[in-house]
Amino acid sequence: MTISGVGASPGIGHGPVYVLTVSVPEPPEGATYQGEAEQEKARAHAALDRVAGELEARGVRAGGQAKDVLAAQALMARDPGLAVGVDALIERGTAAARAVYVSFGKYRDLLAAAGGYMGQRVADLDDVRDRVVAVLTGHPLPSVPTVAAEPYVLVARDLAPADTVLLTKDVVAAFVTEEGGPTSHTAILARAMGVPAVVAARGATTLRPGVRVLVDGGAGTVTVEPGEERVAEARRVSDARRRALDAATGPGRTADGHPVPLLANIGGPRDVKAALEGGAEGVGLYRTEFLFLDRTEPPTLEEQRDAYRTVLEAFPHGKVVVRTLDAGADKPLAFLPPPTAEPNPALGERGIRLFKAFPDVMSAQLRALAGAAEGMADRLQVMAPMVSTVEEAAWFVHECATRGLDSAGAMIEVPAAALRSKDLAGVVDFFSIGTNDLAQYAFAADRQVGALVALQDPWQPALLDLIAAAVGDHGVPCGVCGEAAADPALACVLVGLGVATLSMSAPALPAVRAGLARHSLAQCRTAAAAARGHVTAQAARNAARAELPGLAELGL
Amino acid sequence: MTISGVGASPGIGHGPVYVLTVSVPEPPEGATYQGEAEQEKARAHAALDRVAGELEARGVRAGGQAKDVLAAQALMARDPGLAVGVDALIERGTAAARAVYVSFGKYRDLLAAAGGYMGQRVADLDDVRDRVVAVLTGHPLPSVPTVAAEPYVLVARDLAPADTVLLTKDVVAAFVTEEGGPTSHTAILARAMGVPAVVAARGATTLRPGVRVLVDGGAGTVTVEPGEERVAEARRVSDARRRALDAATGPGRTADGHPVPLLANIGGPRDVKAALEGGAEGVGLYRTEFLFLDRTEPPTLEEQRDAYRTVLEAFPHGKVVVRTLDAGADKPLAFLPPPTAEPNPALGERGIRLFKAFPDVMSAQLRALAGAAEGMADRLQVMAPMVSTVEEAAWFVHECATRGLDSAGAMIEVPAAALRSKDLAGVVDFFSIGTNDLAQYAFAADRQVGALVALQDPWQPALLDLIAAAVGDHGVPCGVCGEAAADPALACVLVGLGVATLSMSAPALPAVRAGLARHSLAQCRTAAAAARGHVTAQAARNAARAELPGLAELGL
Repeated sequence: MTISGVGASPGIGHGPVYVLTVSVPEPPEGATYQGEAEQEKARAHAALDRVAGELEARGVRAGGQAKDVLAAQALMARDPGLAVGVDALIERGTAAARAVYVSFGKYRDLLAAAGGYMGQRVADLDDVRDRVVAVLTGHPLPSVPTVAAEPYVLVARDLAPADTVLLTKDVVAAFVTEEGGPTSHTAILARAMGVPAVVAARGATTLRPGVRVLVDGGAGTVTVEPGEERVAEARRVSDARRRALDAATGPGRTADGHPVPLLANIGGPRDVKAALEGGAEGVGLYRTEFLFLDRTEPPTLEEQRDAYRTVLEAFPHGKVVVRTLDAGADKPLAFLPPPTAEPNPALGERGIRLFKAFPDVMSAQLRALAGAAEGMADRLQVMAPMVSTVEEAAWFVHECATRGLDSAGAMIEVPAAALRSKDLAGVVDFFSIGTNDLAQYAFAADRQVGALVALQDPWQPALLDLIAAAVGDHGVPCGVCGEAAADPALACVLVGLGVATLSMSAPALPAVRAGLARHSLAQCRTAAAAARGHVTAQAARNAARAELPGLAELGL
Repeated sequence: MTISGVGASPGIGHGPVYVLTVSVPEPPEGATYQGEAEQEKARAHAALDRVAGELEARGVRAGGQAKDVLAAQALMARDPGLAVGVDALIERGTAAARAVYVSFGKYRDLLAAAGGYMGQRVADLDDVRDRVVAVLTGHPLPSVPTVAAEPYVLVARDLAPADTVLLTKDVVAAFVTEEGGPTSHTAILARAMGVPAVVAARGATTLRPGVRVLVDGGAGTVTVEPGEERVAEARRVSDARRRALDAATGPGRTADGHPVPLLANIGGPRDVKAALEGGAEGVGLYRTEFLFLDRTEPPTLEEQRDAYRTVLEAFPHGKVVVRTLDAGADKPLAFLPPPTAEPNPALGERGIRLFKAFPDVMSAQLRALAGAAEGMADRLQVMAPMVSTVEEAAWFVHECATRGLDSAGAMIEVPAAALRSKDLAGVVDFFSIGTNDLAQYAFAADRQVGALVALQDPWQPALLDLIAAAVGDHGVPCGVCGEAAADPALACVLVGLGVATLSMSAPALPAVRAGLARHSLAQCRTAAAAARGHVTAQAARNAARAELPGLAELGL
């Protein structure tokens, strides 16, 4: 039997299934308590404290980005407004567990209503709530083994950060979830760990614990009881792939020497190390949101300048493309609230649109960037998110120029911008295509809705059409910094479409480099034309791969 | 002084300003009452009842669609859950007015969180709440004069249905609102009444009551104290326009005889009369949602069949294009809930995507349509909303064919469908472009967000590109049924792009007919090319209009 899902992190994993079932039952409505209200309140506070402390401790052990994620969860448990709500309910006779459950519910509704990035935190909040309720009711907490005789395949509906941050490659052979898409938390984590993952694998949690499965994170399949031969073959392919990737070094280029700089997507200075290890030739997308998130005031000019300068200094020979703050939508900021509650934040006042309302924030960021680039100005490129019209692009370029920033570009993630790239090319110096958002809008399919995952497939011929339109024949260089660039076959197709640079998360760099090195520019062009000549995503992918024989040889 | 906004209903209106200020103050937190809880509860119930009764009575007097809108508002006031919440608060000592305010707040959050169509009902709910609070506190209720010596220009932040349903053309010369967009409630109502309207006119409510203004609903301007000459000139143009429109009759065609059937957008049998009066040659968009909204179970087969048959019989010589249920997004149905709470409903499981999850509802609708068309099957065309891929289109066509429905088409409102119309043309019999949603997705700009109105401008060259791509050279006829078809200049451009039929709300038909009749197909093509040759929406509009001199002669 094979379960099909969506490949979210490439590679082969094999091992016994461990099913994580998270089900702390809802404390019944009308639940009351014995004894004094003050005692019950003390119990509730102690449980909230304990869970907050555990989350913090787990974060400290894990370190890195996980630390921040768990610290944010701990803050939820320590929220003073939450405690006030719990106390009020207990005073009216409600049991502590029920009071906690109900009080979290109000925050849950707010987050869910906010949607996007905040909406995705609903799962984090539920996780905190369940942990506190479990402490109060004595219910066993879900947990994942952190040591194992043999690495296991972790199967779950979805995974919370707290479940996964202490896991390592020695313990987990692969991740399989029923929910999630290629940009979900699980997918990003798995790629960062270098562990294979398949998401949107409906039915996976019905597998018997202990049954052996073979997970192909490239093909997106989970084969149940594959048999020794099949596993051995998969491992052979996997090992050959690893060797081939290790052998691929140096700057990105096709087999016939057409250069394609391979760049890294980063969120800040802490991602530089992995980018350098992956052989990144520069930074194709520096997301600056992380400097601004979870704060009540913008970072100071000095703070920003240091963060940008650190990254510029880390790549003495490569370009660094900084995307100005992409606030709004799934990344709301306390000091940049969108003017009204938005029914569809992804279609709202986000990116450069929000800068029109808060020009001071942009102006400060551009000044910090100009300061950071002193002596290195030729390597800094600045681009604006969510550009849809020439007016917006011209405004941004002007704002950059008045601050001495000479290379200003536009993200192409709105279909209208792709269709009118020729007009935009008259005002900007470069383009960078964000394939995730571009697919979301081109197919009117939310990246966060698992049921629509087929419409977000970057192999959809209509998306390839839009990328071709964005590249155009206007002569302005156009890169890709979306997830599509991380698929070795699609990377070749993008080069065939005329894309100049590819930027991706660091772990994807070796496979893309190896895939490109095996094929000529002509092969890439033929593959691109073959893909666009088909009607479905699956057919486009198959047609392109047929023109790229070196990928199968590499096990990619 | 001139205030610029967005023209939402064409025509010239002149008169004194009447500013509607709706501001029933929020009852203070902690407000308590004297006397018995039972008495206070009785007061609250009486106020809720009174407001519900008044809304119902007002609806009955207004009749038509307004009756349903106000009946829905009355239902909000009569909600038993609301009364329970109010009682509970009063028992804890809260004054009735405050209890009502708080209890409505919970529903408000739910609606706002639902977004889209439901989110737009927040204003309706607030209106009910304010009316109940006003009754309880003795605060004067906002009201609009329903008789006037001279028609006035009604200016407001936004208008609630209850404010406007009793107004007639004799009383109101024009509507001007600060909020809203071209598809807002006010805009739709104004067009239905044939009264000029300008929306998104920032600053309008600061006008002194009584000051005379000239409203140009075509240009989207409000001229303050225009002077007699200016008004006389505007009237002269307006009268000439009226005469020209009255003179334009018969089927839609260009000056050189190229036929362009002019069709009506309808929501059900009750809209047939206006469509016939406007000279509609058939129905280009029959929205079937109204049969399904505000119900807990789907309509019966007989009920559906009757509604469809009535419309088919009303147009014995014209086609009737029925769009299958477009549930989800801004039109959630109780019996078709999207599988999960959606962070961006407009990008979620809506239209044909939801039918995949609820095939029985589609199957029943198709059977009802087949039954309704007995003996008239050659005039019925059925189309699916939100088609994005060939797989979806092929599935829908197959489902239609197995029920004897031979003409099956696809709405083009997702950019990917426009880009791949050639592929879709291989499976469907016709296309109909929904320009409102197509613009929303092409520019990633929510139709409901007033600040993004410039991105929703149907003259945006990128939108014209997508329409041209949808029409293509595949030979499958392609109509337009979005708001764009109702603009006489844009209608000519659409014909120039190769659009076969134009469907619009009935009041827009005469102006479009007159505009088309003044220009040759070659002029329309030249105008289309001129528009696409420009970079901004404004330049595209000006360039097209320069090629269509007959419009200015008609005052259009």
